[in-house]
Amino acid sequence: MRSTMMDLPLSVQMILRHGARIHANSRVGTFDGAAFAYARFAEVARRAERLASALASLEVRQGARVATYCWNHQHHLEAYLAVPSMGAVLHTLNIRLFPEQVAGVMDHAGDDVLIIDGSLLAQVAGVLPDIRSLRHVIVVGETATEVPPGHFRLHRYAELLAAGAERFPWPTVDERDAAVVCYTSGTTGSPKGVVYSHRSVFLHTLATLGKDTFGICQADRILLLPSMFHANAWGLPYSAWFSGADLLLPGPHLKSTDIRVIIEQQRPTFTAMVPTLINDLLVADRQVPMDMSCFRVLVSGGSAVSPALITRVRERWGVPVLQGWGMTETSPMCCLSIPPRSASTDEEAEWRSKSGRPVPGMEVRIVGTDDRPLPEDGSTVGDLQLRGPWVTAGYHDHPAPESFSPDGWLRTGDVGTIDAQGYVQITDRTKDVIKSGGEWVSSLELENKLAGFPGVREVGVIGIPDPRWEERPLVFLVCDPQQATVAPQAIRDHLSPLVARIAVPENFAFLTELPKTSVGKIDKVALRRLFATGKVDVVRVK
Amino acid sequence: MRSTMMDLPLSVQMILRHGARIHANSRVGTFDGAAFAYARFAEVARRAERLASALASLEVRQGARVATYCWNHQHHLEAYLAVPSMGAVLHTLNIRLFPEQVAGVMDHAGDDVLIIDGSLLAQVAGVLPDIRSLRHVIVVGETATEVPPGHFRLHRYAELLAAGAERFPWPTVDERDAAVVCYTSGTTGSPKGVVYSHRSVFLHTLATLGKDTFGICQADRILLLPSMFHANAWGLPYSAWFSGADLLLPGPHLKSTDIRVIIEQQRPTFTAMVPTLINDLLVADRQVPMDMSCFRVLVSGGSAVSPALITRVRERWGVPVLQGWGMTETSPMCCLSIPPRSASTDEEAEWRSKSGRPVPGMEVRIVGTDDRPLPEDGSTVGDLQLRGPWVTAGYHDHPAPESFSPDGWLRTGDVGTIDAQGYVQITDRTKDVIKSGGEWVSSLELENKLAGFPGVREVGVIGIPDPRWEERPLVFLVCDPQQATVAPQAIRDHLSPLVARIAVPENFAFLTELPKTSVGKIDKVALRRLFATGKVDVVRVK
Repeated sequence: MRSTMMDLPLSVQMILRHGARIHANSRVGTFDGAAFAYARFAEVARRAERLASALASLEVRQGARVATYCWNHQHHLEAYLAVPSMGAVLHTLNIRLFPEQVAGVMDHAGDDVLIIDGSLLAQVAGVLPDIRSLRHVIVVGETATEVPPGHFRLHRYAELLAAGAERFPWPTVDERDAAVVCYTSGTTGSPKGVVYSHRSVFLHTLATLGKDTFGICQADRILLLPSMFHANAWGLPYSAWFSGADLLLPGPHLKSTDIRVIIEQQRPTFTAMVPTLINDLLVADRQVPMDMSCFRVLVSGGSAVSPALITRVRERWGVPVLQGWGMTETSPMCCLSIPPRSASTDEEAEWRSKSGRPVPGMEVRIVGTDDRPLPEDGSTVGDLQLRGPWVTAGYHDHPAPESFSPDGWLRTGDVGTIDAQGYVQITDRTKDVIKSGGEWVSSLELENKLAGFPGVREVGVIGIPDPRWEERPLVFLVCDPQQATVAPQAIRDHLSPLVARIAVPENFAFLTELPKTSVGKIDKVALRRLFATGKVDVVRVK
Repeated sequence: MRSTMMDLPLSVQMILRHGARIHANSRVGTFDGAAFAYARFAEVARRAERLASALASLEVRQGARVATYCWNHQHHLEAYLAVPSMGAVLHTLNIRLFPEQVAGVMDHAGDDVLIIDGSLLAQVAGVLPDIRSLRHVIVVGETATEVPPGHFRLHRYAELLAAGAERFPWPTVDERDAAVVCYTSGTTGSPKGVVYSHRSVFLHTLATLGKDTFGICQADRILLLPSMFHANAWGLPYSAWFSGADLLLPGPHLKSTDIRVIIEQQRPTFTAMVPTLINDLLVADRQVPMDMSCFRVLVSGGSAVSPALITRVRERWGVPVLQGWGMTETSPMCCLSIPPRSASTDEEAEWRSKSGRPVPGMEVRIVGTDDRPLPEDGSTVGDLQLRGPWVTAGYHDHPAPESFSPDGWLRTGDVGTIDAQGYVQITDRTKDVIKSGGEWVSSLELENKLAGFPGVREVGVIGIPDPRWEERPLVFLVCDPQQATVAPQAIRDHLSPLVARIAVPENFAFLTELPKTSVGKIDKVALRRLFATGKVDVVRVK
């Protein structure tokens, strides 16, 4: 007996058609620093169709790579919709990389076309002539930058669109065709390209609409703080388009003063951000109170959030924090810290501070060094591995067998536990685990336990060599400038009852800010370099 | 550039694994008429695994058909999970069909195994020996019925499970493999088999979790009133399992007094029902008030709901009604009457009384007789056609090119409009079908069965409005002048053994001749007009 069902390819085209048709009146707003300029989905869809026909007139064929080097704005969204739907591959470039790194990934991806903000052109103009595959550079908005001559043609986005045909015959795509390529931030080596398929984008998008996932719906107004070059901004542009949620795009205006203006003017219901930014907003709120009651949830990801921070956000603003654990390799939605339905109010912050449980469609396991599953009892620590229809099985033109188990699960590089209800708790990055006296000390646990400590603004922990213990933790602290410097002994007294004796640190270093990666995570590689080059004063207390 | 994503088959296995692992503590309750017996998902999953291994020991191979003839209860759910996951095909039989019809579809599907409630065995025991493919009959619960000997073996469900192994090596399935077959009710011809694939079940299930669709989530307690033999009970058993919602299974206890007890005892949050039942509950509520405040929504489908009914439910119980338009061919979730976000409170009932707009993934269009799209302006009327990854493209072993457009859309047989925001309004239905109590009664079938009845010269059947059943058949008769007038009761006696009970008519009208169209067919439009203008005397017999 054979299935009788329709065999329609799951695709970005489906998402584009649905939003354009069913949610024609939903809106995309772009911030210019003072106010929002809005366009209806119907209008954005018309422009996306013009963009596709304009690109086709530049002989952009199916499979060609169209890169973007842009802030979060409406034109970037037009490329999100048009490029995959025309059968080409959208390559979202990280604007925080060095020019040479940009040239490297463009070359590696074989980019044919670059769509670039005029305001960002100066950052990379010098390297563009080096990219051999590049045939067209399309500049969005005004620019004063001169582009050195190359074997590409220069265009203006507005003119190109105006010249594009109104209708474009969208081609048939195969659901396994490439739709978007996004390179990892490359903190652990050279950047690697994850190539999302039409199928994986569609499935991820459908999954983000789930009531027990992000729950994106037509009533939402999404403040898109995650960068559109970072794992498709958590997939949210597609989620908004498929569900009819309004999108609020901040452009380059990302300071906490900008965000305050946006929140107060536009009353978004949903956003996602790194914990550091939540902290910044709490600091800003102490200076001038902010009304955050418009949010139904604040999603946090990139690094762990402490229960203290979650409790503070709930108490101050009445908003739950939802933690997401995911990565470029997972599209990125993977685990979310939605408490189990049995959780009491008292336990809520504790559950929400976990890395979360896999959303429907995703699977997670812990394994030993032999890749064999370990007990999921909430205490056994092992390497975390993932599998699911929106997880990558490799990297573009970059064999990486070490990243996958023999049976095809993704090795996340994170270490942690899984409990009886399937909740993951990451205890560390594989490489960040501190081995001390034969025990594993979790740098993450120390960071979490110190996150809410009075006077501590930021904290980062690394392992440093120790002749007796092999390694010992070193705690980097950024203290609140308005308060007295935190005393190391006070920290030791605070931690003593909370962690194993071996984990109580005796090494401290004080900085005015912590180095961050291009996606806002604490840059542990930089912290280790600071220590290794003797550029920090280590205070030793014992 | 090729996609790097994992190529995992979308499957019922994924759903089974997720619910068993992540929602081990969610519960399935079965009603015995007085109280619920509960089992945790973990326990149901263990039993499903035992069932799979027991079936395998009966040499049920991948692709074999395992039929169920059961009420809604836990054992039926175990089959829902085990049968597709082991690579076999679940065939859910309609317990309201006549034994010969049951034998017909079992034969057509080539059923290998039948799982049947002991309490239902008497209904079909006599025909089982006729089904040549049938090798095993598994009886759930007690029975006093003797099964005539056949070339099948008889088993008891409980004993079979007890003998099954604890672990079963689930095989790899292809996502396009058949998972479930469900026959249409066959009002417009013989019943036709829609064969859902693993892929279509997975996608439909994921889609039902969407906040703007059914929004099934772990906080839900689903009262499963739709029959599990009717389009997978709207897909809800899989939705509950994937999301961790509790399932409340009423067994055969479906009277409104039973439903009252269940609602008052168990406080469900979600259910789906036919409008007739909503009406019954409102009537029951007038006698003894019911507290329905536990429901977050009442989903209604099968036939249209009036704005007045929607308003009454909202005013009386504070619960929104959500209307669903779908069919066996669409898995069935297709269009839902969620109001647009711009709708005011005053307009809400009006929006909710529409047939709805397509959920993400589904597409709908109206076409003329040439299959070419018509304007979607809310007023142009045309034939409604559907497309989507969980819509059928054909029927099992039954070519039906007339059911599909040349470009592959499903012809629904319904006629209506689509407005600027994509909302469908069905204005008319396939002209010969009568919708009564959520079931489809075929006027054509009644006419055929009466065509040869002694003393009947001509017969024509239309649907007329009925306050309780929405529609009931009205039989127009032209009697042979040479014979005595046919007695309505004689007709009822004649039809009773031939058609479903719901189809036995109680309304009759006698004419001297029937109006005809230009090609000599009975003119049903004229018959409807005769009735509407009060120009016929209706004889009511019951």
